[in-house]
Parts: sequence; structure tokens; C-alpha cells
Amino acid sequence: MLQNQGREMMIVTSGAVAFGKQRLRHEILLSQSVRQALHSGHSQLNDMSLPVLEARACAAAGQSGLMALYEAMFTQYSTCTAQVLVTNLDFHDDQKRQNLNSTLRELLHMNIVPIINTNDAVVPPPEPNSDLQGVNVISIKDNDSLAARLAVEMKADLLIALSDVEGLYNSPPGTDDAKLIDIFYPGDQQSITYGTKSRVGIGGMEAKVKAALWALHGGTSVVIANGTNPKVTGHVITDIVEGKKVGTFFSECKPAGPSVEEQTEMARRSGRALASLHPDQRSEIICHLADLLTERKEEILAANKMDMDLAVSAGHLPPAMLKRLSLSPAKLNSLAVGLRQIATAAQDSVGRVLRRTRVAHNLELEQITVPIGLLLVIFEARPDCLPQVSTLAIASGNALLLKGGKEAANTNHVLHQLTQEALSMHGVKEAVQMVSTREEVEDLCRLDKMIDLIVPRGSSQLVRDIQRAAKGIPVLGHSEGICHVYVDSEASIDKVIKIVRDSKCDYPAACNAMETLLIHRDILRTPMFDQIIDMLRTERVKIHAGPRFASYLTFSPSEAKSMRTEYGELECCMEVVDSMQEAVEHIHKYGSSHTDVIITENEDTAEKFLQQLDSACVFWNASSRFADGYRFGLGAEVGISTARIHARGPVGLEGLLTTKWVLRGDGHTVADFSEHGTMKYLHENLPAGQPLAGQRDSN
Amino acid sequence: MLQNQGREMMIVTSGAVAFGKQRLRHEILLSQSVRQALHSGHSQLNDMSLPVLEARACAAAGQSGLMALYEAMFTQYSTCTAQVLVTNLDFHDDQKRQNLNSTLRELLHMNIVPIINTNDAVVPPPEPNSDLQGVNVISIKDNDSLAARLAVEMKADLLIALSDVEGLYNSPPGTDDAKLIDIFYPGDQQSITYGTKSRVGIGGMEAKVKAALWALHGGTSVVIANGTNPKVTGHVITDIVEGKKVGTFFSECKPAGPSVEEQTEMARRSGRALASLHPDQRSEIICHLADLLTERKEEILAANKMDMDLAVSAGHLPPAMLKRLSLSPAKLNSLAVGLRQIATAAQDSVGRVLRRTRVAHNLELEQITVPIGLLLVIFEARPDCLPQVSTLAIASGNALLLKGGKEAANTNHVLHQLTQEALSMHGVKEAVQMVSTREEVEDLCRLDKMIDLIVPRGSSQLVRDIQRAAKGIPVLGHSEGICHVYVDSEASIDKVIKIVRDSKCDYPAACNAMETLLIHRDILRTPMFDQIIDMLRTERVKIHAGPRFASYLTFSPSEAKSMRTEYGELECCMEVVDSMQEAVEHIHKYGSSHTDVIITENEDTAEKFLQQLDSACVFWNASSRFADGYRFGLGAEVGISTARIHARGPVGLEGLLTTKWVLRGDGHTVADFSEHGTMKYLHENLPAGQPLAGQRDSN
Repeated sequence: MLQNQGREMMIVTSGAVAFGKQRLRHEILLSQSVRQALHSGHSQLNDMSLPVLEARACAAAGQSGLMALYEAMFTQYSTCTAQVLVTNLDFHDDQKRQNLNSTLRELLHMNIVPIINTNDAVVPPPEPNSDLQGVNVISIKDNDSLAARLAVEMKADLLIALSDVEGLYNSPPGTDDAKLIDIFYPGDQQSITYGTKSRVGIGGMEAKVKAALWALHGGTSVVIANGTNPKVTGHVITDIVEGKKVGTFFSECKPAGPSVEEQTEMARRSGRALASLHPDQRSEIICHLADLLTERKEEILAANKMDMDLAVSAGHLPPAMLKRLSLSPAKLNSLAVGLRQIATAAQDSVGRVLRRTRVAHNLELEQITVPIGLLLVIFEARPDCLPQVSTLAIASGNALLLKGGKEAANTNHVLHQLTQEALSMHGVKEAVQMVSTREEVEDLCRLDKMIDLIVPRGSSQLVRDIQRAAKGIPVLGHSEGICHVYVDSEASIDKVIKIVRDSKCDYPAACNAMETLLIHRDILRTPMFDQIIDMLRTERVKIHAGPRFASYLTFSPSEAKSMRTEYGELECCMEVVDSMQEAVEHIHKYGSSHTDVIITENEDTAEKFLQQLDSACVFWNASSRFADGYRFGLGAEVGISTARIHARGPVGLEGLLTTKWVLRGDGHTVADFSEHGTMKYLHENLPAGQPLAGQRDSN
Repeated sequence: MLQNQGREMMIVTSGAVAFGKQRLRHEILLSQSVRQALHSGHSQLNDMSLPVLEARACAAAGQSGLMALYEAMFTQYSTCTAQVLVTNLDFHDDQKRQNLNSTLRELLHMNIVPIINTNDAVVPPPEPNSDLQGVNVISIKDNDSLAARLAVEMKADLLIALSDVEGLYNSPPGTDDAKLIDIFYPGDQQSITYGTKSRVGIGGMEAKVKAALWALHGGTSVVIANGTNPKVTGHVITDIVEGKKVGTFFSECKPAGPSVEEQTEMARRSGRALASLHPDQRSEIICHLADLLTERKEEILAANKMDMDLAVSAGHLPPAMLKRLSLSPAKLNSLAVGLRQIATAAQDSVGRVLRRTRVAHNLELEQITVPIGLLLVIFEARPDCLPQVSTLAIASGNALLLKGGKEAANTNHVLHQLTQEALSMHGVKEAVQMVSTREEVEDLCRLDKMIDLIVPRGSSQLVRDIQRAAKGIPVLGHSEGICHVYVDSEASIDKVIKIVRDSKCDYPAACNAMETLLIHRDILRTPMFDQIIDMLRTERVKIHAGPRFASYLTFSPSEAKSMRTEYGELECCMEVVDSMQEAVEHIHKYGSSHTDVIITENEDTAEKFLQQLDSACVFWNASSRFADGYRFGLGAEVGISTARIHARGPVGLEGLLTTKWVLRGDGHTVADFSEHGTMKYLHENLPAGQPLAGQRDSN
């Protein structure tokens, strides 16, 4: 597929020989800024076992078919192609090189895509047995160096070399420590171990790297990527052109900071030290950070002013976001107060014994709380998130990667420095790392072997995007808050008015705000109904009628497009149900299992609702807005989870902990407990509490 | 892409007009058993806004380019194509129809793929304004009916109609209740609501369905699927031919049982009733099932004998699997004993109050345990799993979908019937459903909106496969158990021999068996070292040397290919480390965080190891084989989890529970607690215990 994006490109193809052979590779050269993505097809025909010597004939025969294919494919996008056959010798002759150069320039100028191949029919025959892969490898090598030469000759911006592996690895793919290299600097070459030549992907890789370095010295950037992955083929080139992290990028200049992989490593290592500290030491770090927030407020506020000025002059941030971006001395003070509260909670988080069992004589088992590991927290342009989230991570002994909104970059930078300063007091400075705002969330999610949990803090759109991107990594959060308030036939009018108003109007953008109001049929056309409608009208809440509600009204308000809408504004859906039971069914069908409320004076009805409804939070005669970690008394809130495993509803520090099982024995084996063994399981529950370390049965 | 699989196929294409217009669609007709998958390309060119009347001219012009494209693409796979242009009128004339028929047969016979299109140049012009979509829609309709007619005429086995939506929905896609129909029976047509004509996907769908039904009556099966999804294009046709669930399949015969979607619905509904039962009632069900296992053992054993006979005569099951497949009266008895233990545990699982807080006067919060929802348990040919797993689900109030190995089909059928019989005593028969063995795991994972947790019970290969397939649904289990035993320099020789032998040899196939033995450098060339090696030799354990260990030896055993191998047999890797610290680092690098052991007499070293090592189970002077729910005293075991969230290590009933928050108020709003409000948060911790229901402050 080709998209006309006004970019110029050339294609170096190895078609001719491969066309009738094992694999069709496309080596694609995109020049002077890239124009396109070409779908590379792959033939799956079996090797026809042509003798090596027939390769050149095979090439000649294949060339025309290959060109016909390219032409047909490009014609589909009204793009012309031109065939250019060259030999390496053409580059050694200045005259020939200039001719070639001007031919290609002219073609590009006319918006024609040159398709370049080696003129295999006139090159010397490959040496038999010089390489187990015969023609194929030689042809690839030719094309790699050909592409590199052409790229430099034509001063191309980017050369994309497609391979059958993901890119360049630091050791042969498949070995224990093989890692894909994202960005390769020429100085790094010694850190690579190539495989033996007999494996195509690796043997070929050395040649590719040589060609790539040659092109790089000539001023062309290079990407080596996998063109054969059937899932991504056709996207790989567009992805590269869009700047996504695909394959290995060859670059002359080494960036100043560490790569995100290196940061992850540092965080994990330092995080283990953080987890080993005494709880008091973690509390000290947090208190020190709280002090720094007030002691160094000038520094923080100056950085924040820079962010604010930039945001105001850019002028695209809505007022609500500007408000969240801005810090004030008062905000910093209350932030510090909150941090000190977490410092207290930190005393009793990691290392708590949840369960203790005497499995057998001198064999004691403990289940204790431990940190989850490495957290990735992604938050939007709200700098107060940074110290809060860092503190929660420190309190729970977790390593942390932070990725904040770019609008708050300056503020975040200062706040992160202060956090590291606080961490330094116990030598765990690197446990909290800030990831560059340039890193894409999808790229971070590639680190799935390293990151244990992602916590998004921000809009439900952010959460949704992250849940989609985070393949395999658990995400703590809710993507939707479709909260219901059900007004039962036996509801008290005062409570109805108070709770419905608070649930919808207190903060309509919150995830725990009411989105759908369900009313019992008996209330219709009663004074209570009129009062509800009057109140909503006074509060300027726009009502969308559900299908049944609409059918009861002579003049219906606008009909709700869907019963699953999260309005997030002064709008709500209203629907009629026949009974509490029907309300429960409606909520199960259309709700998001976040928070749902019943208003009734009938305790029996209420308890049935609370029991049957399968939501994270179920309330009786209380506003949906209470679904919140602080209001629940959990102290700091990590977020509200609608997941059904791990943590559900408002999540406090506990959501950042997991457990491990510690068994202390004296040479015990399970064979001792077999039928003919000498031991018996006791499984005696012991009181849990502080860790046992050192207090063992002296027998 | 085309694979030569010896199948015959024809393609009906709409290329001509669309080729130069909005979208290129391929309607592909695969006949007399299908031969291939063709990559369908999609042009993204902007609409050139040709007037409607130019369509036929446009078609004539496009036809040749389209054919060139097909030809080039098929040539790549050395397949010939032939162009056949027809009009609907050709079918009305018997002579013409026969001519067409024999032409096509001849082409297919010669292994040529006929590419068929309407001869747009000679058909009547489309009526202007008859349809908002102009030429495009008419062209599609023509091709659908053309394909259907050709399929019937040529007695094709399967007609694949590619659309730009996933298939047929029961109501217009995008509306609240729209659901993709997997299998469509002609009698079901009234249950479909089509969208308005102005939306391509829907307007076109009605025509497609009409054509599909026409073909179905003529004896050709039909699949309507999405050909435009860039991620799956090129796979969609091969997937359909391989019998995967893609799009909507049109079939004459309705299967006997409910579809898996219907089963899921039933299980969820009945599961809610199960969750609402009193804990005693759930215990009663379980005890009744335990009784049935012994009372009806003849029935069970007869079914099991059928499975055993089939397995023996098929002859491909290894002896270990046969042993696991077979049931005996003794096995059933001990199974019943285990079930009764779970019945006891069930008393205190659902509805336990974990936390109780007085948020404010008359506002009380409880966190209580609740079932997770709907579980999918996948197990291999081991029928005793079925009652165990069902019992765990019943005890925890969860609905359950069971998918067992097909080798145990008869036994599972009887056991499932008994389970439903037991469930019937409290009217929740449908809460445990057995899914047909024909259902693929990947298809079940498509039900991600319905299934809350997958529990695989079986080999680590099974777990790995399911973790890969289960996109978005949490999986409880471990895919790898690379367990280490570290022998410290201060270890006691007796304990070393006992523990290493037990860890490796007690049951080498278990996930908690030792795979790597790490020894302190100081032990090399000591009597202890010789004794370890002697013991392993006596037990016939094959040793693979890690690189460092190999370098110390004159005659090294075979070198370990990787330090991350789970041998699962009487084999292990052996490596040398300098210190306990290095052992921890080695395990962090190569381990799977399952279970790791230190053997030492130095308590300080041991505690550091236990503290620093980040595995689900960390043991001191005890065999790795203790990592097991029963040995830990958890009663029944759901599995061993190496996940870092929700549950970790051996998981008992608790792993099948989540929590919900219940708040009981008296008209409370958060506004009451604002700066100028009348209320204050108390956040007073109350003792947890039994549910509060009915015991409220009488004020």
C-alpha cells in the first residue's frame, strides 16, 4: 500500500533471484524524506533447489515478473515506477555515478519511484560453497551495500533495511541474554556478538550493520527492522516514518540521558534497596520530601511559572487544565500535609505478616506483604501528582517510572529532583525515575517483562488508551464510571433531592458522578417526580430520556443515544423501571460496575439491592460521590479500580502491595510427610503480627 | 498471499468501478472446496467525485488495470488467472449459463483461477439518486447476487463474502445491544434489525444476507466476514477455510445445544443466584455433590471405562496421562473427602467483612468479600479436576464455564450432570456450564466482556498457550517454574543432601521441582561437593553445567544451553556463585519468581536471602516441593500463581474472591462535608466480622 504523502522514495529490491526462490525481500530506500510505505509480499513456495550456478539466469528471468508486480501495485495508487539496474562497479566510475545520480534525481523530480536492483545478469558468478546459503545471502549483501551507497550518493534522510528478524540484537537472538537494541551508536559495535554465518538472520545481519554504518558515516540515518512479520508488514515502514520505535535505529549522536531501558534497570535495582529499608527509613524519606516541598517552594513555583507562561502563550489549554497545572504556596503546603499522612501509613505497609502457620514441628510459614516491583505511573499535566505518586511508591517500597504530561515538564523536573534528593538520604536515589515525555506509552508497554503494574492517573480517555496499549501488563484503574442512582418507590423526598443533586452536580466531571437516574414507575406524575425535575432544571442539568421514560411523556426531552453514556457534564440519562429488581438488571446490563446508589426508606429493599448488585461500590441513601479513597478513610488514593481482581473500588496503599510466602525449616522434605514418613502436617494457625525473624523454636 | 493447497477457487471482484474510486473490495468466491487466500488491497485515494453517469466508463477503464494487478499478484505464486465478464442476464438464458458453467469448470480443471466481474460496460446505467451511495452500492449488490448465483451454479462448498464490518449483527453495529451473530440460521431472520440504507455497512448487509440465503438454499455454505481490517486482512480467508470462528456463518442446520454465548449468559444469571445463597446452602450443595460421587460411582466408572477404552485403542496417550485419566472407587472416595473439606471452608468465604469504618455519624462503610463473577477453567484429560474445580467455584459463589480435555469427554459429561444435580437443590443448576470440547480456547477468549478470570489447570504448556490467547482476561497461574536451590558455604551437609534430593527427585515434573542448583564457590572440591554429585548420580539426575561451573571442571558434563530451562525431568543445571548475594542476583536474572530455597546454618545469611529475594515463595532449609496449597494448609488449591497482582504463590479459595464496598447512609452528601458543611469525617475503624445488615445506629 502506498500513501501519497509528498515524500520521495526509492526502492532497492532483491527481487530477481528471490522472486522464484525462498523468500522475497524488499530492501527499501527512502530518500530525501520518505514518501511511502510499500507492502512487501512473501512467497511461500518451496525451495526449487536450483543449482547455485543458475542464479544469474534465474535473476534475469525473475526481473521482468518482479517489475510487473511492482508496477501493478503502484499503478493502484496512480504512481509510476521506473526500473534501474546497476552494478557496484557503476559507483567506482565517477562519470557513471554522476549519470546515475542525475537519472535518479530526474525520476524523483517527476514523482516516479525508481526501483533499483543489481544487474545480476552481468555480475560475476557467486563463488560456489563460499556460503551455505548460496545465492540468497550474496544477493542480500549486494543489496545492503547497494542501498547504502545509493542512500549516501543521493543524500537520503533515511534508509530502511528490512530483515527477517526484529532488528539488531546484542547477541544472537534466542540466547539467554539477547536484547533488541533500540538505538545503535557506532561506538557500541564491540558490544555485539554476531551468530555464525550459517544462520541467515544473523549472518546477514553483520553485512547489514556494515552497510548501515557506511551509510551513517555518509550522513544517512538507518533503521533495520523486520519486514516479514505478517501482523505488521505493511505497517512497519509507515511506523518507522512516523517515528515509532521499530527495529534498530542507527544514529551518530548519543543522547545525553540514559535510555528508558537503562532507567528501568536502575529503578529496579534501586527499588530493591528501597524495599529492603526499614519502614522508618521509608517514612523519613517521605517526611524529608514533604519538608523540601515547603523549603524549596521558590524553586518549584519558578519552574511552575515557566510552564504556566508557556501554556498561556500556546493558548490551547482549557481553563480547567490551566488551573490544575498551576501550583501555589497553599497547594504545596496541603500537598506536604498529605505526604506526611502517607509517611505514617508507610510504617505498617511492607513486611506486614498476614498469615502465620505452623506447618509442622520447626517448619513455620508466613505470608507477608511485599512491594509489587516496578510501577509505571502515567499522569497528565497535573504536577501535584508527582510527589503524591512518588510518595505512594516509596511508602510501599516499589520502584517507579514516572511519565508526566509535557505541559508540566519544568515543574515535574524540579519535583523529581527533590524526590531524588529525599531518596538519596538512604542511598536509593534511582528508585524513582522520570521518563522523557518523548517516550510513547506503547513503547513503554514493550517493557512488559520489566514493568509489573501500570497506574494511569487522569481522564478516563487516558485510562482507556493505556488499557488498550498495555498488552500483558496489568493496569490499575477504571476506564468508565457509568454510575446510577435508583430512586425507589419508598424513597424519602428530602434524601432524593439531596443525593441526586450531590451525585450529579457536586463535580460532574468526576468518575463517581451520576450518569443515569433510574426512577420507580410509581413515582412518575407524583410531586416527588416534579421536584426532582425542578431541581435538575434549576441546576441546569440536561436530561436525556431513556426509551421507556420517553414513552411515558407527552413532551419528551431529547432521547438518550445510548444507556451506556458517561456524560461527564451537567447532563444525565433518566429511565423508568418497574421495581428494584429491574433497576439491578438495568445496572448490570448498562453499568460499568463502578458505583451505584439506592435511595429508599425500606431497609429490606435496600439490603437486597446492596447484596445483589455487582458493583465495586454499592451505596444506600448516600451520594455516589463518596466513592473516593480519602472519603473512605484509606488515606491517599492510588485510583479507583473497576477490575475484578487484585483491588476493587478506591485503592489505597494496599493496592501497591503483593505478598510472598516465607517458609523456615530445618531440613524438611516432603518425603518426610509421605505415608511412610516420620512427620505429620500440623497446619496450626499462629497469630499474625510483626515478622518472626529470629524468634524460632529453639528445639 | 496465496498458498497452493490443492483447492479450487474463483474470485468475484468488484474492482472495475471501485478501482479508481473510494474503496477496492474483493468479493471472493471459493468453490468446490477452497484453495486460497488472497490478499485484498485497499486504496486510500480520495474520492475523485466522478459524476454518477461516468461509472460505466470508469468501470471499463478500471477493468484492465485490475486484471493486471490480479495477474501480477497471482504470478508471484505461479498461478494463472482468467478474466470472465458476465451480466445477470447470462444466467437467465440456459444456453449461456451452460456455456459459462463449462468454461469455468474447464478453467478450474486447468488450475486457473477465474476472476469474475459484472460486465459493467454493458449493464443498464444506475438510476440516479436511487441510492445515496451511487455506483458503489449498486456494484456491491450486483456482486453479492452474482457470487451467490455462481456459487450455486458451480455447486461450490463455501462462499465467502467480504464486507467492511465484522459480519452480521442482530441490530445495527454501534447501537447499545448490537451483537455479532456467529452462526445464522434461516429461521432467525426476523431477529435482525437492519440499519438505514444510508450507511454502507448496513444497507449493503441486507443485500448480502439476501444473497447468502439464496446461496444457502442452493446448497452452498456462506461466511460473511470483514475483509478490511488491516490487522487480519490476508488471514481472514485462511482463517475461515481453517474453520475458525470469523464473521457470520450461514448454516441450514441448528445445533442441538445452546451456543457458548448462551451458556455464558445462563451461567452468569444462575451464578448471581448462587452468590445470593446463604453460605450454608452453598455448603449443602457441595456435600450433596460429594455424596453423589460415591452413591453414583457405577455410573461414573462406566463412563470412565468408555474413555479409557477409547484412549487405549487410540493408543497415543502416554502411560502417565492414562493414569491421570482413570478413576477408581478409591480415587472417588478421596475426592469426596476433599470436597467436604471445601464445604467447610465455604462457610467463611463470601460475605466476610474485611474492614469496617464509621465514616461519619450514621454513615458506615464495609468492605466485604464477593465472588469474582464468571470463571473459565480449562483443564486437561484429568476428570477429577471437574468436581474439584466446580466445588471451588460453588464455595466462592462464582459462575463457572468448564472446558475439559476431549479424552475424558464421557467421564466429564457424567460428572457435570451430577454437579448440576447437586446445584439443582437450591435452584442454581445452570451456574456451572460445560463448554463443548470443539470450542477453541481463542474463541472463548473472545468473550472477554463476559469472563472475569481464566484458571488453567494442567501443564505449563497449557498455561502458556492460554496466557497468550487470553487477551485482556486475567489468567491465574504460572507458566514456568524455574526453581533454585542455593547451597551456602555454611550449609549442613545432611540438610543439603536431603533437600536437594527431595527438591529435584520427589516429583521432577512438578512446577515446584528444583531446576537449578547454585553452589557457593567454597564448596567446590570439598567432600560436600562430592557427596552432592554422588547423590545426584545415584538418583540418575543428568547435570548440565552453567558456564562458570564448567570452567572449574577438568571434565565438564554437557554445558547448559540456557540458565532459564525448566527441565521437568531428572535433569538440572548446576552453577557456581561467589556469595549469597550473587545467588540472589542469579535468581533474579534467570528465575521465574516461583520458589527458591537457601540451605545454610547461618541465620543472618538466611534472613537476608529471604528478605531480598523477590519470589512468590522463599524457603530456608526446606524443600522447594513444599510450595503447594495443601502443604501450606490452604485446603484446596486453585493453582500456583507467579503473577504479582491479585494472588501470589499457592492460591486457595481466596484467589477466587474479590471485594466490594458497601456504604450505608442517611441522605449523606459530600457537600455536607465541605468547608461550610455541617459534617465531619470520623474515619473510625470498627471491628470487622459478620455483616452489619440490620444493626444500625437507631438515631
